[in-house]
Amino acid sequence: MSGLIGIDWGTSSLRAYRLDGTGRIVDVRTRAWGVRQLPAGGFDAALADVVQGWPRLPRLACGMVGSRNGWREAPYLPLPAGAAALGGALTELRSADGEALRIVPGLRNADGPDVMRGEETQLFGALASVPALAERSTWLLPGTHSKWASVRDGAVVDFATRMTGELYALLCHHSILAATGAPAAADPEAFARGVDTARGSGAAGALSRLFSARALMLDGALAPASVPDYLSGLLIGEEFRSVLAARRWALDVPVQLIGEAALCERYRQAALRFGIELAEPLTDAAAHGLWRIALDGGLLGAAQAGAAA
Amino acid sequence: MSGLIGIDWGTSSLRAYRLDGTGRIVDVRTRAWGVRQLPAGGFDAALADVVQGWPRLPRLACGMVGSRNGWREAPYLPLPAGAAALGGALTELRSADGEALRIVPGLRNADGPDVMRGEETQLFGALASVPALAERSTWLLPGTHSKWASVRDGAVVDFATRMTGELYALLCHHSILAATGAPAAADPEAFARGVDTARGSGAAGALSRLFSARALMLDGALAPASVPDYLSGLLIGEEFRSVLAARRWALDVPVQLIGEAALCERYRQAALRFGIELAEPLTDAAAHGLWRIALDGGLLGAAQAGAAA
Repeated sequence: MSGLIGIDWGTSSLRAYRLDGTGRIVDVRTRAWGVRQLPAGGFDAALADVVQGWPRLPRLACGMVGSRNGWREAPYLPLPAGAAALGGALTELRSADGEALRIVPGLRNADGPDVMRGEETQLFGALASVPALAERSTWLLPGTHSKWASVRDGAVVDFATRMTGELYALLCHHSILAATGAPAAADPEAFARGVDTARGSGAAGALSRLFSARALMLDGALAPASVPDYLSGLLIGEEFRSVLAARRWALDVPVQLIGEAALCERYRQAALRFGIELAEPLTDAAAHGLWRIALDGGLLGAAQAGAAA
Repeated sequence: MSGLIGIDWGTSSLRAYRLDGTGRIVDVRTRAWGVRQLPAGGFDAALADVVQGWPRLPRLACGMVGSRNGWREAPYLPLPAGAAALGGALTELRSADGEALRIVPGLRNADGPDVMRGEETQLFGALASVPALAERSTWLLPGTHSKWASVRDGAVVDFATRMTGELYALLCHHSILAATGAPAAADPEAFARGVDTARGSGAAGALSRLFSARALMLDGALAPASVPDYLSGLLIGEEFRSVLAARRWALDVPVQLIGEAALCERYRQAALRFGIELAEPLTDAAAHGLWRIALDGGLLGAAQAGAAA
């Protein structure tokens, strides 16, 4: 039996992939056991449950499981970093069943400073799927902590985090802007209006226009149910406004999305209003990345590596 | 018996002033009964309690008590607006004890759009204390929703809201940045570092540097207990960066602060790092403003008005 058990283990959930000897996904299991809400029995119990019944195979995990508050800290690697550097810097622990679990390190950018953990694996998985992007590309991974990254010659050479998703959640769940009593309803026009408000905010930035959500609502010019979509547009729009202003990310190269389909579509729509075209998102990037890094880390036998080449 | 009962009734608290026939404050009472957390018996019970034992005098209130979710909506006035316009547009209701309560309208800026409610009263109170600022001045009222305003010839001609205080509270209480487990400790150096990070963020804006709080902490370069002060500096710094970038507020005229002393001092410190000098904050501005507007609204007898002139 050859193959790999790859685990994408983040803050709020855990996804385990069983890959065959060629790197193909043959089974996927998802649990709500992120690093912050483990079952009784903790990490060991979560792992034992999610791999139950699967054959004994090398195990490789990425994401917050390797953070200081995770199972075992996997120290950050500095930039530039390619898949081989990640594969050569795995942290190993032994779980209660006596098997080894290896963890992919995160990346640290001294410029910022900034850190990522989990996204590096998705990025190298996507790169393995679309090798043409290895030479020169820009990457956008929307999410709670949206990441922008630059790739040159197969290595991540720069990246930065925007807290767009977390700010959106905070504003929608806890701020006065969301205290409307109305359940949210999808409103693409309110979203577009939010994007355009951010785009028109110039160097002052869209934070200076945040309160417009409340004033427009009081005016009757924005339905209470549409406030979340307006805020989503305003914050995603601010991400693009700010990225353009920073002139840090090449936009004359392919700009590749990785992430959840509906969120990526929001980003694609917002980007179009800034004249930026984003490629369709790539799927199963984490699984492909774990496979790629396992190969580079020598976790798979020579036969397996040959099969995948 | 002559005088006024002035009530500054906001979202989270209620402050009642008893003013004598010359506008001098002779008593102040504070209750935790904001519009969002009233006692049993609601507005009527809160009012009856806070004025208990005081003589029968005209009653004038400002703030969120006049909002849509307050006691009675006092419609917004458009700009430009002076104290006389506010005095001429009071909303009146009758409380359970048969007495009249009048409410100061808020202001609405079509440019934004934007709204304020309560700050207009503070601003006119401060203007009554420092008449030299009436011709041309810029105003800064820090708080949950920080307000910037321009005054020309005694009238508010422009204003805008920055949600600095609310964002700070959201990030400190609910975000991953604050999930350090450490109680906050005062750290002026971390505050200054946050201000400078915002100042150095250029047109990209400080939102793009928010995640640095986490990366610095993981690096050991920022103590977990100092994260709140770093964020405070970053957000207040962003307010100044953005205000300078907008070129909307005159900074070659007196820039007057109104607000709580400790918060105003933070703003003064941050402003200095941008080369802006802010005048010391004015106190009791709401009480003075309620007196000024009561005079303009004809709530006080001719004898009282004469005494205050």
